[in-house]
Amino acid sequence: MRGVIMYAPGDVRVEDRPDPIIVEPTDAVIRLAATCICGSDLWPYRGAEPVDHTPMGHEYVGVVTEIGAAVATLKVGDFVVGSFFTSDNTCEICRAGYPSHCVRRTPIGREGTQAEFARIPNADGTLVATPGQPDADLIPSLLAASDVLGTGWFAAVAAQVGPGKTVAVVGDGAVGLCGILAAKQLGAERIIAMSRHADRQALARRFGATDIVEERGQDGIARVKELTGGLGAHSVIEAVGTQDAMDQAIRSTRAGGHVGFVGVSHDVSIDGKGLFFSGVHLHGGPAPVRRFLPELIQLIWDREIDPGVVFDLTLPLEDAAEGYRAMDERRATKVLLTV
Amino acid sequence: MRGVIMYAPGDVRVEDRPDPIIVEPTDAVIRLAATCICGSDLWPYRGAEPVDHTPMGHEYVGVVTEIGAAVATLKVGDFVVGSFFTSDNTCEICRAGYPSHCVRRTPIGREGTQAEFARIPNADGTLVATPGQPDADLIPSLLAASDVLGTGWFAAVAAQVGPGKTVAVVGDGAVGLCGILAAKQLGAERIIAMSRHADRQALARRFGATDIVEERGQDGIARVKELTGGLGAHSVIEAVGTQDAMDQAIRSTRAGGHVGFVGVSHDVSIDGKGLFFSGVHLHGGPAPVRRFLPELIQLIWDREIDPGVVFDLTLPLEDAAEGYRAMDERRATKVLLTV
Repeated sequence: MRGVIMYAPGDVRVEDRPDPIIVEPTDAVIRLAATCICGSDLWPYRGAEPVDHTPMGHEYVGVVTEIGAAVATLKVGDFVVGSFFTSDNTCEICRAGYPSHCVRRTPIGREGTQAEFARIPNADGTLVATPGQPDADLIPSLLAASDVLGTGWFAAVAAQVGPGKTVAVVGDGAVGLCGILAAKQLGAERIIAMSRHADRQALARRFGATDIVEERGQDGIARVKELTGGLGAHSVIEAVGTQDAMDQAIRSTRAGGHVGFVGVSHDVSIDGKGLFFSGVHLHGGPAPVRRFLPELIQLIWDREIDPGVVFDLTLPLEDAAEGYRAMDERRATKVLLTV
Repeated sequence: MRGVIMYAPGDVRVEDRPDPIIVEPTDAVIRLAATCICGSDLWPYRGAEPVDHTPMGHEYVGVVTEIGAAVATLKVGDFVVGSFFTSDNTCEICRAGYPSHCVRRTPIGREGTQAEFARIPNADGTLVATPGQPDADLIPSLLAASDVLGTGWFAAVAAQVGPGKTVAVVGDGAVGLCGILAAKQLGAERIIAMSRHADRQALARRFGATDIVEERGQDGIARVKELTGGLGAHSVIEAVGTQDAMDQAIRSTRAGGHVGFVGVSHDVSIDGKGLFFSGVHLHGGPAPVRRFLPELIQLIWDREIDPGVVFDLTLPLEDAAEGYRAMDERRATKVLLTV
């Protein structure tokens, strides 16, 4: 099969890779319908994380082509959505709602889903079948559910978004934008998007943002406070992963409010005294996307949400290198690869 | 009146101070029935925080002797309990359950309740009257409600303690011990006290601890994991405020679990990446004691809890200097001063 390999920072190639096979009886193999490039794939691309002839990709939707002997809930031909960690969905941690921390989790990144086929361990606990074969125009949204929507949704849930609440969203990438969509669906009264880019502001408004704040740092915090009677937002989503974004998020939240943080932390350090006296709640981490997939798939199936519009560039898998370049150079927010 | 003044680190004196008077129409003046020395009073005592001829004390119970013209819910003669921040109990932050972050809060420490009398600003929103004049033996427990019990209770609530949960408590001072008492009252199934001191272990067991862990650091974390099927505790109370205690708390909590931290942070820095991948919830800060006072007073009044036993040394106010020495030298966990 064909698949993406990152040889080294900046060096992405599409090559022949061995076809995946069933290794464990709990595995499935899927034929990808679409895959995509993640903001987190840019870290190794830019040399900020080690990479050496590494298969890439951890977002995926597709059709089951083979199942292991122990797979009970899926059959060949099912159209499925999964997430970036596999999970058994039966352990105590999964049952408590945290499949991304499942005691038997495996990272899908290891399989590399920017490819024609992929092996999915823990298939029963990981893959969720759609109600039928999806119309082609639903595929981008189903693919978004695999990571950016699931992650933005978790951020909103972690930030305790709900009716009557004012939500601020730090980060206008695909995850932040999906966080806005989630906040709207979860009933937020007011949604403040922090963004300086006209195209992303437009998408933020389409997804439900009621206010746009272009200021950053101290000025951004002051602006959010100004919009919230001096108190700060009830709920703040942090979808970047930098020190500035985390500081901004904590300090834009009112005492007793909630920060949901899903930006993968890079060199972030949280001042204990500042956090103590802020009185905020802090929760985040790798999103337990599997928890939300049944609900998200149904919302997409019923055409109530259209997160797939976060993909602003679609390329064939063979052109993956151009997709990486486009995201690196910020010519694209999120690139979908057709398979 | 007589009152405690800390002249400088290590130099505590009891001297004549001006009698407090009504300054704002929302003030009350109380005659202290008892007061006490807080673990946090040791920071300036040890030179770790600035101090210069400062009136001391922020824990208090006593009888109202005077009220301002705007005080509506209290009358002279009421026996009252309050906490270390005054609050109006009507603002949006108070109504959301966070009176310790009230928009009109004032620190009681500024008044100095290690004294015969104290002015209490925001009296209506701060003071809670007991059902009647308390029996003398209830006074230590009511005084504990003013800070250490209210703080330990908040830590347990912040850590989402509840039926079926395993709770670990980092810190065996008065607050940690009250956290154990709170965890028991809130229905925890298993309570792991982390303590190396025989007398505190005994009190921990009396308050409801089911397991004692003497190990610290990596070994302490490993022991808590061992006691919880490898997963970590559902709920962890951090009642120290040091880097080691915070690290211990976060790393002893299972993914999706909750850390309630109430130790006043000193030079604590939380690694963002570690917190991200831990998947825990983090909440804490200055405890909103006022939220819990009505319930805590009733539990004490009904003799269902006896947090006053955390006071292991009782001295007259005039001997405050000896009280500070005893706590500094760890000869006492918590010192009550009779007035």
